[in-house]
Order: sequence, then C-alpha cells, then structure tokens
Amino acid sequence: MDDTTLLMIPGPTTVPKRVLDAMSQPIINHRGAEYGEFLGETTAMMSEVFQTDNDSYLLTGSGTSAMETAVANIVEKGDKVINIVSGKFGERLQQLTEVFGGESIEITVPWGQAVDPAEVKRVVEENDDAKAVTLVHNESSTAVVNPIKEVGDIMKDYDTLFVVDTVSSLAGDTVKVDDFGLDICLTGSQKCIAAPPGMAAITIGDDAWNVIDNVDSPTYYLNLKKMKKSGDKVPPQTPYTPNVSMTYAMNEALSMVLEEGLDARIKRHHTGAEATRQAAKALGLELFAREGDYSNTLTAIKMPEGVTDDQLRGTMRNKYNIELAGGQDHLKGNIFRIGHMGITGLPELAATFTCLEMTLKEFGFDFDAGAGVAALEDVYLKNA
Amino acid sequence: MDDTTLLMIPGPTTVPKRVLDAMSQPIINHRGAEYGEFLGETTAMMSEVFQTDNDSYLLTGSGTSAMETAVANIVEKGDKVINIVSGKFGERLQQLTEVFGGESIEITVPWGQAVDPAEVKRVVEENDDAKAVTLVHNESSTAVVNPIKEVGDIMKDYDTLFVVDTVSSLAGDTVKVDDFGLDICLTGSQKCIAAPPGMAAITIGDDAWNVIDNVDSPTYYLNLKKMKKSGDKVPPQTPYTPNVSMTYAMNEALSMVLEEGLDARIKRHHTGAEATRQAAKALGLELFAREGDYSNTLTAIKMPEGVTDDQLRGTMRNKYNIELAGGQDHLKGNIFRIGHMGITGLPELAATFTCLEMTLKEFGFDFDAGAGVAALEDVYLKNA
Repeated sequence: MDDTTLLMIPGPTTVPKRVLDAMSQPIINHRGAEYGEFLGETTAMMSEVFQTDNDSYLLTGSGTSAMETAVANIVEKGDKVINIVSGKFGERLQQLTEVFGGESIEITVPWGQAVDPAEVKRVVEENDDAKAVTLVHNESSTAVVNPIKEVGDIMKDYDTLFVVDTVSSLAGDTVKVDDFGLDICLTGSQKCIAAPPGMAAITIGDDAWNVIDNVDSPTYYLNLKKMKKSGDKVPPQTPYTPNVSMTYAMNEALSMVLEEGLDARIKRHHTGAEATRQAAKALGLELFAREGDYSNTLTAIKMPEGVTDDQLRGTMRNKYNIELAGGQDHLKGNIFRIGHMGITGLPELAATFTCLEMTLKEFGFDFDAGAGVAALEDVYLKNA
Repeated sequence: MDDTTLLMIPGPTTVPKRVLDAMSQPIINHRGAEYGEFLGETTAMMSEVFQTDNDSYLLTGSGTSAMETAVANIVEKGDKVINIVSGKFGERLQQLTEVFGGESIEITVPWGQAVDPAEVKRVVEENDDAKAVTLVHNESSTAVVNPIKEVGDIMKDYDTLFVVDTVSSLAGDTVKVDDFGLDICLTGSQKCIAAPPGMAAITIGDDAWNVIDNVDSPTYYLNLKKMKKSGDKVPPQTPYTPNVSMTYAMNEALSMVLEEGLDARIKRHHTGAEATRQAAKALGLELFAREGDYSNTLTAIKMPEGVTDDQLRGTMRNKYNIELAGGQDHLKGNIFRIGHMGITGLPELAATFTCLEMTLKEFGFDFDAGAGVAALEDVYLKNA
C-alpha cells in the first residue's frame, strides 16, 4: 500500500496498476478494425463474466446509464412494471420506470432485508400483464443481497421480463445470467470488476429483444437497437464514440477476473465479507442487515452510540487515510459501510480494522485490542 | 513520433502524454471533498474555455450524450424546434428533436456549405413560437464551419433559445458563449481539447434554465436539473458516479489549453487548417467545402479520380501508419478527411503530406514531389 487513500467504499474500488497502466495507452481510431476487434474481445469476456451466451454491450456511462438503458428500452407509457424496492438503487429503477411513463407496482421491502421470493410470485401472479420485474441483486445502500436465483426460477413460469441490476455484485458474487433466467442484466466497471468508473455493461436475452424491438424508445444515446445494429457489424462497433481508454481498462480488468477464475474470485469475496462481519462483531458492533441477507461485497454496520459519523469516518479518513462510506438518505449518520470488493482483500481489511480499533479506542469504546483483527485471521485461516 | 498510428482523423485526436499520465492516477472517492474540489476546478476551467460566466457540467458520456442532454431537457411533445441541418451532426440534433417529441422545422443546407444567417432570421421570424434553434458550429462530416456569431447576433432579438454544438470546434476555433449569446453550448473531450473520448461538457445560460425548469424531461441519467442540484453543492458533485480518471484527463487537458492560451491555440488551428488546404491544392486536389466555409479544425478533400478510398486511405494506414477519415453516409468513398485538431500541428501534417504524396505517386498521380510540403512550409513561415 502506498500513500494514496485506501478506498474501502462500495465503489469505486482500488484499481490495479495493470489496469491503470492499460488506460494510459495511446488512443486508436474507434472506427478502425483494431479497435473493433479489441471491443469484440472485451464484450466476449463481459459475456463470459455474465455467464451468458448472449451478446453484451459496453456503454460509455456510469452504472445509472445502464439502469436507464434497461428501463428506457422496454417501458412505454402505461406499461405495468413490478419494482422490488429494498433500498436506494431499487428506488432508482422505480423512478426510471416512472420517468419513462410506466405504472410502478412496488414490492416494498424494509431496508436491511432481502425480498421474499414467495412475495414476488404472489405479485407477478396478480399482475400477469406486467411487462417486467426489476430487482437489484446487491443493494449497496443497505448491504443486502437479494435472491436472484430463486426469483429467476419463479419468473421462468411467466412472460414478464426479469431485469436485474448487478452493478455491485458481478464478479464478486454469483450471477449466472442464462441459468438464472435473467432477461436483462447490467453492471458497472468500478465495483467488483475493479476498473475505474465510467463504463457500464448490459446483456440482453431473446425474450427481451422481442420486447425492445417493439418499443419506440425515447432514448438515443442509450438506445439498445442502435447498440445491437453497431454491435452486429464485423468487427463490432459502438453507435457513438466510445471511451477508448476505458475499453482498455475493462479489457485488462476482465482479463484479471478470468485469470483469477470467476469461482475463486467469488469465494475470495465471500471470505472477505465473512471476515468483515466477524471482525465487526468482535468489536461489539452490530450489523445493519438482517442475518442471512448479508451482502458478500460490502458490509453495513450500525453507528455505535457514543460516536458520530463525522467522528468515526472523519478520524478514519483524516488520521489513517482510509475512506469508509456513510449511510444514504434516512440511513445517513446511522450506519457506515465497508466495501470489500474488487481486488480488496486481507491486507486492506487488516489495515481497516486495525485503524477502526484505534479510532473506537480514541472515542472510549471498550474491547480487547486486536479482537477485530483476530476475528479476521480466524476467518481467513479457516477459508485458506 | 513513435510507432503508434498517427491519428489524423477529426477525433479522437492524439492525447498528450501529460494527459495520459494524469489518467493513470489512483481513483479517489467521488463523494469526497478532494474530488469535489477537483471537479469544481475542472468545470471552472471548462467555463473559461467556453468563455462564459455560466456554470459548466461534465458528463460521463460521449459528445452525443451532451447533444441528447441539450435537446431532452428543453423539448417536449409538440414543441417546435428549428434544426439547421448541414451534415450528419446537424441531422443528429434533428433526430434527437424528433425522439423527444418535438416538431422539427428544418433549415436545409447543402452538405459542404455553411448556413446563411439571413435564412435563419427569416425562419425564426416566421416561427416565433419555436422553442429553440439548433446549430452545429463545426460540421465535421463536411468540414464546414457555421457562422455562430452572426446567427447569435440575430437570435438576441428573439426569445427562441440558441443551442450550439461545438464538439469539434471548442478550443480550436472561436466560441464565445456569452458574447455570441449561446443559450446552451456543448462539447466533447476528444477533439480540440485533446483528452481521450468519454467525457462531454455542457454550459447553460439563464434563459435556458427558465425553460429547463419548466420541462418534465423524460431523461434521468442526462437530467440537467439533477446535474445543477449536485453541481450547486459545496464542493460540487455529480448526480451519478462520474468517470474519475476522465476528470483527471480533462483537468490536465484544459490546463494545457489555458497554458497555451485560447487565442494562441485557435490561431495555431487556423494556421494548420490553411496549411492543409494549400498543401492539398498544391497536389492538385480539390476541397469539398465551399470556399469561405472551410472548417478550421479539419479539411475534407474530394477523392481524386483514379484512386479508390480503400486504395488511398488503405495505403496511408497500412504502409505509413497514418489514419485518415473517410466520408460519412452519401459521402462515403467520395471524400477523405484530415483532422488537424488538438495538439496536431506541423510535424504531423508534414508526415501526413509526405506520405500522401508518396501514396498518390504510387497510384500514378502527377505533381512535383514535395509540392504539398512546400505549401505547408510557406503557410507556416507566413504565420510564424
């Protein structure tokens, strides 16, 4: 670790030097064959990470641009859409539904909990004219993972599309687009893939294309029909000028994912998550999410009484150069969040919990010094 | 020059090493004060380059995302919009107008010519209920510059907004947003600013905000009200995760623009353009654009009889590692285009014309060897 701030937030995450170096290569013509072939290689790796035989598309934009792409290309005025809302990003898919004229049927899930698949089945059954169900796999605002496999299994019995946001889970938790029956799946560059922010990806199944082809979408930059038309060229292109440097970064970051192996990488994320939870508990801290619903890429911890968000995260930042995330919306000040995604692992968690222990001591908390780190060690030894 | 392909296309242009290096710095928290202050410094430079006192916003997207932002935030179903169409990018603003439900009133300008301001006055007068006039300053599909100052002077007498695309001109030709009365002005990162592609910028005047505030725009990712709300924070933020690396690149590239001086940089572009035109003529080639309407950032040259696009540009690419641009749409095969924007100058033009002479000789063209380069020298000596 060098003197740069340690990013322990749920994205953007620390970017490996290999990826940063890739990004500083000279720009090439985005309409030339060399770029086209490189793009094709990169989107093929993207599909491999999505675990799908479908084509994937890279978007020059952040995760939200992919969320808008997913919604804007299927929802028309008056369309019913079932939005599962269990946090800020679930809300965002609902807002997008409404922006594009859809009628949102909300499945409300308390923040900190995962959705119950039986509830999804009930609502889908009741609304068999709904065009889509939207679900955020890993709700980073609450550090909860939603059961996309179980919901996917239910959705296989209905014509309703299943749209899944895996921005903060893909390459860090299990996402099998084809096996799980995800009709549309989207992600971002700056979370578990560990590239810089600024690129997003989306993959579309045949049933979704049938819908998209019949929608006159009020979007141009994020138009999937245009992306497909350009992507189908040999070699593939993008409809508008892509971020060439970010394509280099994604190619390198996805290569690193596949070199590590998807299963190994996901196991590493699970270990880091379990270690973080045990370390927090060993310091007497309480987790925010309901037991069993814990995210595998970040952890939300209740702000302990006796210290404010400014004091805790401020000390971690100013004294120890470690950046933690706060709560969002009504959770602001009530929780703090530790991201353990991408290349973040034991060294970073060790530094984080050592400094968290020192910070808590400074504010008069009582626990055995080293208890958090001891819990980390225990989990890592068991999972070695 | 190293062994990388020489990019003589109208964007993306060659990116200076300083900018590429800036981009490979570690990622910082996009919600932290450090990023916010850096963003504020960068958008302030952006406004300086736009020559405006208005705020500017950086978009994580390509130039087209800024075009969509400009249109989507002001046009509602049934709104009349006057689209000046003199090439592919003028057409794109018209398509965007229609995507967002606007009624396009087209001012058709033959490809290769600039719009006549008197014609704009006539049409604006006739349609005083039009919400906006859209104009592409530098139409890179035809290598023509449109008279934004003269049209701006006319527009000052009307309530109709003046929306100007300066994607391929800003920092390479004269754009004075406040003086010229441009209500909305947008640009891209990868042209005369010489950063990589993947970021765009937009600046909005008070009259435009009055319209935007009253439009219920069907856009989320490109929503200007959200950009303003986040941008007004101290320090400023972006509504969604920005491309942090591209913000580094833009900061460095804009610093280089301001170090060189906007006037000096524009004069350098004018000299490069004049040199290119004279060199082309000296080889017996014909320019595509009408005399007097020539772009200052790229030049379109008619494909001479006796050589195909594949032969000419293919030889330049495969034998000499120099990338030229072809024609778009119906101009495909009929013209080729040389970009002279960003940091591209005498060394690159010398290499390009030397190799172009050799290519033309190979296909049997007759001219004095060295005539093109001699013309370059002459223009550069006169403008030293």
